Amino acid sequence: MNPTITAFEDSPDEGRGQARDMRVRWALEEVGQPYRVRLVSFSDMKQPRHLALNPFGQIPTFEDGDLTLFESGAIILHIASTSTGLLPDDPVPRARAVMWMLAALNTVEPPIVEREQVGYWEGDKPWYDERLLLLNDRVRRRLAPLARCLGDAAWLEGTFTAGDLMMVLVLRRLSGTNLLEEFPNLCSYVARAEARPAYQRAFEDQRAVFTDRHRLIRP
Amino acid sequence: MNPTITAFEDSPDEGRGQARDMRVRWALEEVGQPYRVRLVSFSDMKQPRHLALNPFGQIPTFEDGDLTLFESGAIILHIASTSTGLLPDDPVPRARAVMWMLAALNTVEPPIVEREQVGYWEGDKPWYDERLLLLNDRVRRRLAPLARCLGDAAWLEGTFTAGDLMMVLVLRRLSGTNLLEEFPNLCSYVARAEARPAYQRAFEDQRAVFTDRHRLIRP
Repeated sequence: MNPTITAFEDSPDEGRGQARDMRVRWALEEVGQPYRVRLVSFSDMKQPRHLALNPFGQIPTFEDGDLTLFESGAIILHIASTSTGLLPDDPVPRARAVMWMLAALNTVEPPIVEREQVGYWEGDKPWYDERLLLLNDRVRRRLAPLARCLGDAAWLEGTFTAGDLMMVLVLRRLSGTNLLEEFPNLCSYVARAEARPAYQRAFEDQRAVFTDRHRLIRP
Repeated sequence: MNPTITAFEDSPDEGRGQARDMRVRWALEEVGQPYRVRLVSFSDMKQPRHLALNPFGQIPTFEDGDLTLFESGAIILHIASTSTGLLPDDPVPRARAVMWMLAALNTVEPPIVEREQVGYWEGDKPWYDERLLLLNDRVRRRLAPLARCLGDAAWLEGTFTAGDLMMVLVLRRLSGTNLLEEFPNLCSYVARAEARPAYQRAFEDQRAVFTDRHRLIRP
């Protein structure tokens, strides 16, 4: 039986690959693991059935036999650890690839999400414009060292790993802000990842959820 | 040769165990691995020698033979994966323990750090009081599901794991806010972890950096 993941029934980003199921879809495509998707509404995510999978009421979740996981980083670590293609076999580059995954999630993503959320949560507050400038600078303080570190390399540690997968999807959250464009090598890095066949299959599959639904609702 | 970690020469929290070297010290104590500590000043952290270890200029870093790591989560995953005592052997509880580590770092910690930083970065702004209320609610929205999930259990997945280690240290960052006190079982959970001998050794060692330095500066 193939594993089952959950994804938004009605994607808030209109299928632009920003929801966190994209991380898991891409990882599964990279390792060649077929999977099933159960779509959930915002209301479903607050119901006992979904909260039993993820107490924080978010997607994605992952079910495979007697293993149930939430937290996209943990799901990808599990996929990467139990298959071939996302982590090097040699212990040193393997630990470094995991390090970049964690750096994406815990050092680079938080200021990017905070900057994104200021629009949702505080867009009507008198402090919005001034905070946005502060937050842009906090994001730049993560992007500049990352860009120096990547330099002219294709990937963060030689070959493509789960660390690049996570970092690229975190950087893609900046789409529409013009912040990533200040770092041309990071833009090329994201484009290089988006050209991978596994990325493209995952992207089309998550996009189909939106376009199919859109087609059904407005025939 | 034992591994070397970096820690603040002059701990901004005055040895209260809030700096991220505490995570690595505690993990190393749990698995019984001796280690060396190189203390770095805020100025050292921006110099090429340290930036070669961590491009984002932060502590802790970890050096062991030809492996160099930054990002406390990655360091702990490495320690836990290469020794005994922080992750169960059985694949299902092992993946679940890693999941809780990631949940601590990517779901529970971000709003806690954001709430903490509002004081540093925005304490003089006219919006400070109103934002603090918003951020307290965002923290509660993480603590409430976590508290329901833990219930009356001692640890998140049966036995103590790296997931508890990370979650407890993330929750300890709320010290002084009175937010954790709204969830008595989470307070007991933190106290239970703090009573572990490995925690106490790690805590005393990080505290000694502050007290020793304090003694030298003001004899």
